[in-house]
Amino acid sequence: MPNPASPSFAQGVAELRASEIRELLKLIDRPEIISFAGGIPDPAFFPLDAIDNAYKALLADPAKAREAFQYSISEGYLPLRQWITGYLQANEIDAAPERVLITSGAQQALDFLGRAFIEPGDAVVMSAPSYLGAIQVFGTFRPRFISVPMDTDGVVLTELEAAFRQKPKFCYLTPDFCNPSGVTTSLKRRKAILALAHRYGVAIIEDCPYEELRYENPRIASFSALEADYLRQPGNDGRRLAIYVGSLSKVLTPALRIGWICGDATLINKLVLLKQASDLHSSTANQIIADGLARTCHASQVAKLRKAYKERRDAMLAALEKSFPKDVTWTRPDGGMFIWLEFPESIDATELLAEAIRDIQVAFVPGAAFYANDQKRNTARLSFSLGEPERIREGIERLAALLHNKLRANRAA
Amino acid sequence: MPNPASPSFAQGVAELRASEIRELLKLIDRPEIISFAGGIPDPAFFPLDAIDNAYKALLADPAKAREAFQYSISEGYLPLRQWITGYLQANEIDAAPERVLITSGAQQALDFLGRAFIEPGDAVVMSAPSYLGAIQVFGTFRPRFISVPMDTDGVVLTELEAAFRQKPKFCYLTPDFCNPSGVTTSLKRRKAILALAHRYGVAIIEDCPYEELRYENPRIASFSALEADYLRQPGNDGRRLAIYVGSLSKVLTPALRIGWICGDATLINKLVLLKQASDLHSSTANQIIADGLARTCHASQVAKLRKAYKERRDAMLAALEKSFPKDVTWTRPDGGMFIWLEFPESIDATELLAEAIRDIQVAFVPGAAFYANDQKRNTARLSFSLGEPERIREGIERLAALLHNKLRANRAA
Repeated sequence: MPNPASPSFAQGVAELRASEIRELLKLIDRPEIISFAGGIPDPAFFPLDAIDNAYKALLADPAKAREAFQYSISEGYLPLRQWITGYLQANEIDAAPERVLITSGAQQALDFLGRAFIEPGDAVVMSAPSYLGAIQVFGTFRPRFISVPMDTDGVVLTELEAAFRQKPKFCYLTPDFCNPSGVTTSLKRRKAILALAHRYGVAIIEDCPYEELRYENPRIASFSALEADYLRQPGNDGRRLAIYVGSLSKVLTPALRIGWICGDATLINKLVLLKQASDLHSSTANQIIADGLARTCHASQVAKLRKAYKERRDAMLAALEKSFPKDVTWTRPDGGMFIWLEFPESIDATELLAEAIRDIQVAFVPGAAFYANDQKRNTARLSFSLGEPERIREGIERLAALLHNKLRANRAA
Repeated sequence: MPNPASPSFAQGVAELRASEIRELLKLIDRPEIISFAGGIPDPAFFPLDAIDNAYKALLADPAKAREAFQYSISEGYLPLRQWITGYLQANEIDAAPERVLITSGAQQALDFLGRAFIEPGDAVVMSAPSYLGAIQVFGTFRPRFISVPMDTDGVVLTELEAAFRQKPKFCYLTPDFCNPSGVTTSLKRRKAILALAHRYGVAIIEDCPYEELRYENPRIASFSALEADYLRQPGNDGRRLAIYVGSLSKVLTPALRIGWICGDATLINKLVLLKQASDLHSSTANQIIADGLARTCHASQVAKLRKAYKERRDAMLAALEKSFPKDVTWTRPDGGMFIWLEFPESIDATELLAEAIRDIQVAFVPGAAFYANDQKRNTARLSFSLGEPERIREGIERLAALLHNKLRANRAA
């Protein structure tokens, strides 16, 4: 029923639209569909025994339990911020508990950062393609998006510098196994990006939910680690421009909703006030459980997930190699959950998805939604995180057959 | 260390300030202080056994546990939305699960509503005094606040109508035992306010976290219930202007962070998208546990809390009556957690607090922060939710002695 008197929405919210793709994908939650659409962790790997033990220990201690189910401070549970600090320090970042804010997942971290910085019309730099959830949430603050294309080493420097000349509020990047592209920014490129950031005074938001899910090659220092090193050099400019966004969702479990931001003290102090205004604090109990899990099974989870997801990535890459048409290209990610496809320009991936669901019971995400500007409609994201290798091979083979048919038909037309 | 290169904050966030009071109150978390400052539930009443059982049952079922710790839909866990719907329907509200959004506490509900409606400069109507957390979060969207004074029946109608003529985006009210004033809006006043809202097309956000904590007199129909009745009458205008904000924090436990919004379908559909952009969804496990608790012990919690908090309210009211200076006035709330004091104009409650902490080890919240405009500095909020009646009496007597001395000194000066 139309409501003649709903007060008018603020513009940033009025423009929020349900993604067509998400609506389409809602329809495919059926066991006969082989879905590469998800991009979520396989729940078979959740550390349920450790979770069970953590709750039992918490609830066996009434004083601790009362604390766990009471209101708490907006900054977040101190032992968890201490664990995160240790984790970041082990990765060469000069973190401190008072410069870490716990958020309700990394998504809320992006929301707060967008809200803290963006006035309508402000420029914001993103890679093209980029994480859909970042485009959506930053979009609610009505920035002017500047998209920078990527090569196999990350965003292209000449175009990044041109973007930085437009005085953006920040540059948002996923340096490791980017969702959706799977691209990892090389060390050399990271150093060059950081140097540009300092030259132009642009904050770098680095979104690192997947960094532990690395299946080959050594870890590459984060922007925050490189900046910590830079800030120890003589003649540095004293600016802390890197903002690190992390998450326990991919390694432990998403539903505790534990993410964090580590950055400059001025920024974190402001974001603590924003957290207080926005939802007071993240669930105390969840933070306590997450702290216990992080201390007892973060390392074993990482080992387990690397082994399992590597097998799945390898199965998908091998199946693509074996069966896909030669005029389709794809990325070969060192980690994460995603492979990015680029089809010949005659293929519209949204149309392809509709056919794939209908005719071969395979799903994926068309790539258009991952562009803040100038969508490339001949792209798609495949996730290999759910499903056994055999099922992955089966799905890729079906998709390959559909593509061969379509391309043959296109050539004939 | 000053950071010369922090990108400038967006104005709504730049203006966020740590409350002086909150900083002062941080210093008083010492056992020798009798604190009436809190306004939080007494953790001694948390249903810890039921919580323990709920987690045990959840984790004993691996399939359910995997669902509980996985990502889930932004709308919220359907059985919980169904329980909330039943709860609202039992209170004469024409709710439906698809018009309920689960939020991370009622605070996030206010954040989303502010974000959905307020463009900078838009008028927003609040009672004076009003909930501090609402003033803070709405303030981040930079509205023009219009404050409407209250009498013992709620906001004053002539002033409310004058405010509605300025075309506000919404009017925010806490109809039952308002935090901080303790005032309950009478049925007659509610009907008149709702009629004005329909005449001027103004949305009413009713914030109802305390409504179950009623210690005397029968429940009064909410704006949403009155509107449901109105919408069944012939000749109604078909508008759904009442927006209900609820919470499980006061009856069950705050740290599950479960609040909700029930409103017009157009609004809820938009807010689901905002929830998705903002933090994806509230903790799945917490929603499942909250659903179990709501079904098994909501009624018994309400009964237990009514009895315990009534005793504390009665102790505070009796002590005020017995010992306070006659030129101090206070409210007599039918429920909730708060009593509102108005001192003679010579008393500045912020100065009084500093003296009270230093000299008599008693704390409360000065009232100034609860005004969006024109602070009354001779007001204070007392909470009776924490502490046994004997300790409440002791604290009020100490405060009375301090006040008698101050007022005597003021008269002598």
